[in-house]
Amino acid sequence: MTESVNGVQAIRWQGGVLQLLDQRLLPVDERWIDCRSAAETASAIHDMVVRGAPAIGIAAAFGLVLAVRSNPATYAEAEAVLAASRPTAVNLHWALKRMRAVWTATPDVARLEAEAVAIFDEDLTQNLTMAHHGAELIVPGSRVLTHCNTGALATGGHGTALGVIRTAWQQGRIAEVYNTETRPWLQGARLTAWELMREGIPGQLIADGAAAHLMSTVKIDWVIVGADRITANGDTANKIGTHMLAVVARQYGTKFMVVAPSGTFDLSLAHGGLIPIEERTAKELTEFKGAAIAPTGMRAFNPVFDVTPAHLIDAIVCERGVVTPPTTAALKALLG
Amino acid sequence: MTESVNGVQAIRWQGGVLQLLDQRLLPVDERWIDCRSAAETASAIHDMVVRGAPAIGIAAAFGLVLAVRSNPATYAEAEAVLAASRPTAVNLHWALKRMRAVWTATPDVARLEAEAVAIFDEDLTQNLTMAHHGAELIVPGSRVLTHCNTGALATGGHGTALGVIRTAWQQGRIAEVYNTETRPWLQGARLTAWELMREGIPGQLIADGAAAHLMSTVKIDWVIVGADRITANGDTANKIGTHMLAVVARQYGTKFMVVAPSGTFDLSLAHGGLIPIEERTAKELTEFKGAAIAPTGMRAFNPVFDVTPAHLIDAIVCERGVVTPPTTAALKALLG
Repeated sequence: MTESVNGVQAIRWQGGVLQLLDQRLLPVDERWIDCRSAAETASAIHDMVVRGAPAIGIAAAFGLVLAVRSNPATYAEAEAVLAASRPTAVNLHWALKRMRAVWTATPDVARLEAEAVAIFDEDLTQNLTMAHHGAELIVPGSRVLTHCNTGALATGGHGTALGVIRTAWQQGRIAEVYNTETRPWLQGARLTAWELMREGIPGQLIADGAAAHLMSTVKIDWVIVGADRITANGDTANKIGTHMLAVVARQYGTKFMVVAPSGTFDLSLAHGGLIPIEERTAKELTEFKGAAIAPTGMRAFNPVFDVTPAHLIDAIVCERGVVTPPTTAALKALLG
Repeated sequence: MTESVNGVQAIRWQGGVLQLLDQRLLPVDERWIDCRSAAETASAIHDMVVRGAPAIGIAAAFGLVLAVRSNPATYAEAEAVLAASRPTAVNLHWALKRMRAVWTATPDVARLEAEAVAIFDEDLTQNLTMAHHGAELIVPGSRVLTHCNTGALATGGHGTALGVIRTAWQQGRIAEVYNTETRPWLQGARLTAWELMREGIPGQLIADGAAAHLMSTVKIDWVIVGADRITANGDTANKIGTHMLAVVARQYGTKFMVVAPSGTFDLSLAHGGLIPIEERTAKELTEFKGAAIAPTGMRAFNPVFDVTPAHLIDAIVCERGVVTPPTTAALKALLG
């Protein structure tokens, strides 16, 4: 950790307790929640106290440590509870698989804890590497648009897509950042705006639906997003609304970049149609902070991820390098 | 008014008072606001007590009646205040121009009132005519997606785009209606959902950003929207987010229909780049009911309309008929 990460980290492992910055309350309140068991960790993931694919993977790894510290015999049970906490992000399963390999080889609590800490640390290191790869694609004076929150809050630190933007800005390449509010959970308005403002990066919030107006009337150089799962052919599951941005970007000559660590790739799936897409409660659309914003009984279709087809993506950036444009062969070559 | 309009009307002219259903409070409260002057009417338009391009035109017409009932000498002043209340919808200016012609010919309060009533009544009649024209384009069993609110609440009754959907549903052509929530003002969640539920039309709410996921995974036959201004070549200003839906619809083979009365056309403008686009306060994105949803000081770009280029529109429906696809020549022939 040789580089500044702006002090923002949403996950702490202290005194054998997993502390999570409650992202449901930002930007109004900065409150931390303690997780002392795998079940508490799984609830925190499901309830989105912690969110963002890499951050979920890190939290799940510590969830296993909490389980075995209490009772080593509960490993399998804890693993199952954590695996079921959210379906779309593959980083969760990637982290659990990595932890399982360690535990199978050496069923030792300290060794398992060291692995969770390594996953945490490596995520930050990977993000810094990716940020430099991605920033090189951005010419000075660029305007960029990002979606959801992919910053320090979504990861072990620095961020994926927002990490690229952060580094590109530090390098003087960014004139303006636009960020979508990202309904229904408002990760953009609440979290990305919070990170941008903390660092003094010039940013403007837009409604998700304003993307076509923006891209057709203001020159936007890049749309830069994260990923929850990338299949062998480059199809990318990410926050609902990403696919729409990619379609509009292609229409108006804006390039489209996906930034994710190698743990986000799922080469076992040939294409994005095979990714399970999480649907959450209709209440996320019909209520706001418990108050009705739609008539009682209104149904809602609330998929919280979508799949952007690879042909709409200009570049995929991971810590191992850049693939542009993404193809099955190029991704296989990069990821081995 | 030979046809049922489902009882929903958001504008009443009773006892010389303009009564407006306060659309800021729906669906939670149904409260009416009385306007007794042009200034009160202009404020109600600006503050979105009444919204929807045709409804704004009707309200403005009655605003002039209120002015001259009080003092005929205030006509020009009232006209200026009303004209400035919202910039994008041309129906407002169309209604003011029509009222001005009457007042110039016959400066009589009763005659002016009769003209405002005629504008109100004709809007409903036109909507019923358009609804039949538009419904004929929809094959039985169709799934449709609509945006914002273009129903009885946005018009003199029945609606434009939602009027087509309402009639098509009455004719057994509609399997399912999807409607966007329509940020930032949530006209879809609050108003369209309210109209759909009152009438038992099967509907599901989606986040604006879910449109590409919906159109790429569920067969949607038509996107059907209203308009605030249509230029000579068919470019269409409508609620922010419309343009994005049109780009995505074209990508996934969904047809795109614009429904608006002839008062929405502005043949004095050659193309949509000439339409003034209203930008509203950043607070519509950074606050919700007075509570912060973005960090204090975050800037926002909040255009509340966008322009859909004519080449992305498959059909424009007005009371005089259907133009498919829209061209300058075809629109000129239809509108005379």
